[in-house]
Amino acid sequence: MSPAELTERVRTGVPLAGAWGVEVLEAAEGRALLRLPQRDDLLRPGGTVSGPALMGLADVAMWAALLTLTEGRDESLTASLSITFLRAPPPGAVLAEARVIKKGRTLSYGEVTLRAEGSADPCAHVTTSWAAVPRLSGRG
Amino acid sequence: MSPAELTERVRTGVPLAGAWGVEVLEAAEGRALLRLPQRDDLLRPGGTVSGPALMGLADVAMWAALLTLTEGRDESLTASLSITFLRAPPPGAVLAEARVIKKGRTLSYGEVTLRAEGSADPCAHVTTSWAAVPRLSGRG
Amino acid sequence: MSPAELTERVRTGVPLAGAWGVEVLEAAEGRALLRLPQRDDLLRPGGTVSGPALMGLADVAMWAALLTLTEGRDESLTASLSITFLRAPPPGAVLAEARVIKKGRTLSYGEVTLRAEGSADPCAHVTTSWAAVPRLSGRG
Amino acid sequence: MSPAELTERVRTGVPLAGAWGVEVLEAAEGRALLRLPQRDDLLRPGGTVSGPALMGLADVAMWAALLTLTEGRDESLTASLSITFLRAPPPGAVLAEARVIKKGRTLSYGEVTLRAEGSADPCAHVTTSWAAVPRLSGRG
Repeated sequence: MSPAELTERVRTGVPLAGAWGVEVLEAAEGRALLRLPQRDDLLRPGGTVSGPALMGLADVAMWAALLTLTEGRDESLTASLSITFLRAPPPGAVLAEARVIKKGRTLSYGEVTLRAEGSADPCAHVTTSWAAVPRLSGRG
Repeated sequence: MSPAELTERVRTGVPLAGAWGVEVLEAAEGRALLRLPQRDDLLRPGGTVSGPALMGLADVAMWAALLTLTEGRDESLTASLSITFLRAPPPGAVLAEARVIKKGRTLSYGEVTLRAEGSADPCAHVTTSWAAVPRLSGRG
Repeated sequence: MSPAELTERVRTGVPLAGAWGVEVLEAAEGRALLRLPQRDDLLRPGGTVSGPALMGLADVAMWAALLTLTEGRDESLTASLSITFLRAPPPGAVLAEARVIKKGRTLSYGEVTLRAEGSADPCAHVTTSWAAVPRLSGRG
Repeated sequence: MSPAELTERVRTGVPLAGAWGVEVLEAAEGRALLRLPQRDDLLRPGGTVSGPALMGLADVAMWAALLTLTEGRDESLTASLSITFLRAPPPGAVLAEARVIKKGRTLSYGEVTLRAEGSADPCAHVTTSWAAVPRLSGRG
């Protein structure tokens, strides 16, 4: 699937991601790079991007990375997600780089590094497990 | 602070929570009970409440529980949050019960149990750490 | 299984637990209470119980709690374990209270609260997931 | 500090690591590579290395990585540790590669990848937070 196809898939599957304008920039071989544009309704007082927005971005980033390994077939759902906030991102776009560490039959696992666009330092780090679902028709 | 005052506080501090209609039902002595009403834009295909919405709800639930211990003063920010999804909640409102396990000077820690309204079984379980911030003016 | 039988099971399955003298005090209906006696080789300089000892204690405590739900049959293995250290336990015995939050067909999940014996305040809190294993002969 | 000096430090600070024969192979600039030799008392029935041994190895690996950034001064203690087991390591030595992702004034954070010696695939992945301690004399 191309980045544009994955963007469409992610936005349909997770309407929140669609509303926020999340975009898949690159995706191949168990990795994906996504971008969350700046949106005033995702900021907190003080101007930093809110935690729930970062968690949602990380979740769909891992989903996109997993889809590159299954030819676009949904085979699993988020089983757990752990986020550590490292520094407050300034207002602006946020990039998420997801990497599948293990693609298993029943459990998959990966990590996502979040950075403010234009910054080298991560603003948050995520690990997440995905559990296989027998017959999964549609997801988000 | 009364539940109504905490609802106002949470909605102002985290505009996403306000947009979703999150409400504080009860809050006292390091505990808080919050409700996320059903909203079509928070569902995934298949009809279950999306993960990012559950994570956002848990985050503000712990914030409300912490505010009961500081007379409403903001003294800390989310440092980490771990969610485990236990079963897909059906469409409908979701309740979050937050409990502060430790209120420390530099780090606080607690857990949040999420349930579909009317169900006895948790749909997700969350643990979260909050780090003290020296001079915190406004939060979300 | 009686607490004495579970103690024997845990010590055989996890030789480290046996070497440390871990004991099952109570266990029934998805809950278990275990005790780690004081041992000089588990202390750190300064006299507090070391992190790896607390993690090992929590792991076998959840195992004992799960065994109460399966008539002693091993059906799963630790898939993940997250520990948060809340305060340094003084030298002395440590108690672990484990509780199964969800017993699923493919994934189970629970929490463990650790306390210094004689103290009301937890010194650490653990959440842990266990994955079903098709044919599991012996575990540790 | 040289790998030999760090090995000495780790073994003194965490007697369990000393008893297990943990060795620091390389350490510089926020990274460290450690080795846990095969020991029969760390195995579980079935022959795999036990979870508590892997958790203990990961903990001291991050400690060694942090010491490379502080000229050997102890400035923090483990605040939390999350391990995900990806595949059972066969009997044999285990390698741990630790990497500091953020070295902060009050909180540091990093990840540790564990592999069976001779294997390319990780057997476990760890993330861990360390909290600054005002005046820390001796640690383990």
